[in-house]
Amino acid sequence: MPSSNSNQKAPLKLRRVGIDTYHENVAYLHRNCALYRAEGFQALSKIEINAEGKRIFAVLNVVDDETIVCEDELGLTEQAFTQLGLAEGSLTFVAHTEPPASMDAVRRKIDGSRLTLKDFRNITRDITENRYSKMEMAAFLVASVQSGMDREEILYLTRAMIESGEQIHWDDTLVADKHCIGGIPGNRTTMLIVPIVAAHGLLMPKTSSRAITSPAGTADTMSVLAEVNLSPTQMHQVVSQTHACLAWGGRAHLAPADDILISVERPLGIDSEGQMIASILSKKIAAGATHLLLDIPVGPTAKVRHMNQALRLRKLFEYIGDRLGIHLEVVISDGSQPVGRGIGPALEARDVMQVLENHPDAPSDLRQKSLRLAGRILEFDPDVRGGQGYGIARDILEDGRALKKMQDIIQAQGKVSEVMKGAPLTKEIYADHSGIVTSINNLQLARIARLAGAPLDKQSGVDLLKKLGEPVEKGDPLYRIHAEFPADFSFAKSKAAEESGYRIGKADEVTQSYMEV
Amino acid sequence: MPSSNSNQKAPLKLRRVGIDTYHENVAYLHRNCALYRAEGFQALSKIEINAEGKRIFAVLNVVDDETIVCEDELGLTEQAFTQLGLAEGSLTFVAHTEPPASMDAVRRKIDGSRLTLKDFRNITRDITENRYSKMEMAAFLVASVQSGMDREEILYLTRAMIESGEQIHWDDTLVADKHCIGGIPGNRTTMLIVPIVAAHGLLMPKTSSRAITSPAGTADTMSVLAEVNLSPTQMHQVVSQTHACLAWGGRAHLAPADDILISVERPLGIDSEGQMIASILSKKIAAGATHLLLDIPVGPTAKVRHMNQALRLRKLFEYIGDRLGIHLEVVISDGSQPVGRGIGPALEARDVMQVLENHPDAPSDLRQKSLRLAGRILEFDPDVRGGQGYGIARDILEDGRALKKMQDIIQAQGKVSEVMKGAPLTKEIYADHSGIVTSINNLQLARIARLAGAPLDKQSGVDLLKKLGEPVEKGDPLYRIHAEFPADFSFAKSKAAEESGYRIGKADEVTQSYMEV
Repeated sequence: MPSSNSNQKAPLKLRRVGIDTYHENVAYLHRNCALYRAEGFQALSKIEINAEGKRIFAVLNVVDDETIVCEDELGLTEQAFTQLGLAEGSLTFVAHTEPPASMDAVRRKIDGSRLTLKDFRNITRDITENRYSKMEMAAFLVASVQSGMDREEILYLTRAMIESGEQIHWDDTLVADKHCIGGIPGNRTTMLIVPIVAAHGLLMPKTSSRAITSPAGTADTMSVLAEVNLSPTQMHQVVSQTHACLAWGGRAHLAPADDILISVERPLGIDSEGQMIASILSKKIAAGATHLLLDIPVGPTAKVRHMNQALRLRKLFEYIGDRLGIHLEVVISDGSQPVGRGIGPALEARDVMQVLENHPDAPSDLRQKSLRLAGRILEFDPDVRGGQGYGIARDILEDGRALKKMQDIIQAQGKVSEVMKGAPLTKEIYADHSGIVTSINNLQLARIARLAGAPLDKQSGVDLLKKLGEPVEKGDPLYRIHAEFPADFSFAKSKAAEESGYRIGKADEVTQSYMEV
Repeated sequence: MPSSNSNQKAPLKLRRVGIDTYHENVAYLHRNCALYRAEGFQALSKIEINAEGKRIFAVLNVVDDETIVCEDELGLTEQAFTQLGLAEGSLTFVAHTEPPASMDAVRRKIDGSRLTLKDFRNITRDITENRYSKMEMAAFLVASVQSGMDREEILYLTRAMIESGEQIHWDDTLVADKHCIGGIPGNRTTMLIVPIVAAHGLLMPKTSSRAITSPAGTADTMSVLAEVNLSPTQMHQVVSQTHACLAWGGRAHLAPADDILISVERPLGIDSEGQMIASILSKKIAAGATHLLLDIPVGPTAKVRHMNQALRLRKLFEYIGDRLGIHLEVVISDGSQPVGRGIGPALEARDVMQVLENHPDAPSDLRQKSLRLAGRILEFDPDVRGGQGYGIARDILEDGRALKKMQDIIQAQGKVSEVMKGAPLTKEIYADHSGIVTSINNLQLARIARLAGAPLDKQSGVDLLKKLGEPVEKGDPLYRIHAEFPADFSFAKSKAAEESGYRIGKADEVTQSYMEV
């Protein structure tokens, strides 16, 4: 339908379309929309939407159904609608958009060039402003992996990512943080380290992510005990009361370019060390950390599988950390099996509370690892002699100060139900012969726990009854699946029946633990 | 796949969602859909849809609006719905899907490996089955550009693309085809070459594309004169009657993996020689060509800008063509300005018909170039001596046999209206000073013609009134814009006002024509 003479720039009425396209803005125009016809837009091309001084970018989908959008309307998916921040019916103007200017830098990277700080700044700015399509982000990621980024480029990318969002400032010269590069189910040391370190008197305002591909993130597990969805103001209040917090980082708008890139990197399954380092350090520095302890677990089914890779990563982290002025130490730990017993938010929260309560059933590996890492962080304190951190941490745990601190943090954030009993549908997986547990596959146990419903259903997951090196008789239960819903329960059981994730063999076949550095 | 009991595999009712997402299948599930909840699908994750023995893959979008899909429904975009080919309300089963197995090969390519024929076959098969997301295709394309494909890999990719779809077979030992690698507006030589070659007696069943980023493709221009949307059966009938056709290739399902990759490659703006060669040769070989003439125009605003690049391309084309058993010759031509006068389907059709009719106004550059290329194709005929093709082609054109053949082809395909007068809204663009036309920017003229409405509005476009080297006085019209609709007209005029695309200067500044090889 041709538009009438003068109104070549006729505005379209904004409409919210109840479709969630995650980190990609999608706009909908009706196939008979005059503007669509006139501008010769291509499906999947990118358009620019202007209204009341605001501007967003979106990928175009063409619609043939007036119940979604009419000819005089512009539809936006929920995330795009929120980003524009205007009411339905607002008048919007739509125009072609050129590919983001920084795609030139991406094409230079594809051709093998080294990029500058300015290039990375332009790229992360364009990504944060949603100017990149998923395809363009994939192009950037692949180009970065393939011709590789040298360490200066990783530094530039980190810096550019930090600048892409907000930064939190704390009134203290020592702000401690820790990060584990992941891949180990049940590895909830953070929830023990934070209260120990804060009880000692150091500031440890911890922001964590929710699980994306794992059965539980620290934010998911903490949410079993307390509110974690804190605004930056609430976070400051909690920290000023308790010296710490255990909050979800999603509301603080820290390094948003990183979140957007991760939403492409994960489904692609490409692993870029440079991207990972920039991702971790930008988040921590934006969160205001001055001292950071990094945990790199190594094991046959961990994210890092070989010691030489762990050592190379350590050097890279140290180099970038030093250049960015953050005090950074790396611990290489044993990643040969899950830590603790529970896998899934509630079961992991139970493990954490047992350790804090010095309960006789508390999983000793979780306790030991947490004390060791907490001790290293305590040694960031100039008043603590090298080597004394572990002892101090143990004292704080054993005399109940850590538990008291955790209770204070929970109260300050807002206590919630605190159910930690595991979901009602249960199934035990048994040893099919006698012997010694020689290996536990982190990936398979995580998969089973996710199928059982974790992290969405907090009480769902897996409870390990045997760990590496333990003797088992044929028919002994190895672990227990907990699920809330029959469908999930059935998926998890079939996955476990297909492959339990456990190997039973002889004592000398036990997966070798990696020396902890 | 976990087995069924009661509700865990509850089917969802199929619903067509009137959204066009081009070459990416999108599926919509309601946020409260039991299956969405139970399976822990992630937005943007890929799912597999099974129904009545059919299976397709789609990217998941989550919906909060029951007017789009209800909790017990599965919505599919138009292309996905068509691909599944079932009625609305059909019962469908949805499951997680793993990333396509061939992504392993893509990751190896990212790491710098050389891929095998088997790898390329797996990749094109997965792409054709819509198992790849746009991101994954972008990853494949960037990986191919960046570590480059050696000529064996280009050969493998070409072969794999051919095998990804149908192949047409003709009962003749010499099936001629031609292809121009593009970038020159108005370059409609194909519509002259085909009737000349067919009038000589060679078989030339030509399938062409519609314009994607240009103001007219051969299929768009031919559609001004005749029906081009032919089924494979109709195409065979036309060819058996006339020895030729000038049809749109979209219905023949030739090398579909190529079409899908192009839909990602274009918006990314990455140029991969290997992809281009595989794209062209796979389409031609699948269309049954045994002899192919390739036209590579070289010029400052053409796709190929330097002679050395054209020569390298020629070698690559020759190598792959020889290995695939197609007789292939390459002509490097002058791409310094548009060919003929009209830019846009009807105006280009008018130029073509003027040449066929030996009209005194017929554009001589279009005539000369077409005769030269037709002559080279005639020399594929063992009975034609080298060097005699041009003369034979000229005779066929001048004595009206080419025109007669074109009329036969038009009749056989189905004659249509045949209006070639240009759209009614016109505006002439004038020289702002006197001198010689020293350059004409192909890209800018194509842009203006597209804004004017081409190729959607067949009568819209640009008519060139002056060509390179012609003298002009201040105020002389350089070209005329034709548009159907006021909005388009206004867009085209502002673009031309911004930058006419013409340079007027001194005789010795005229863009140098490239030697034709």
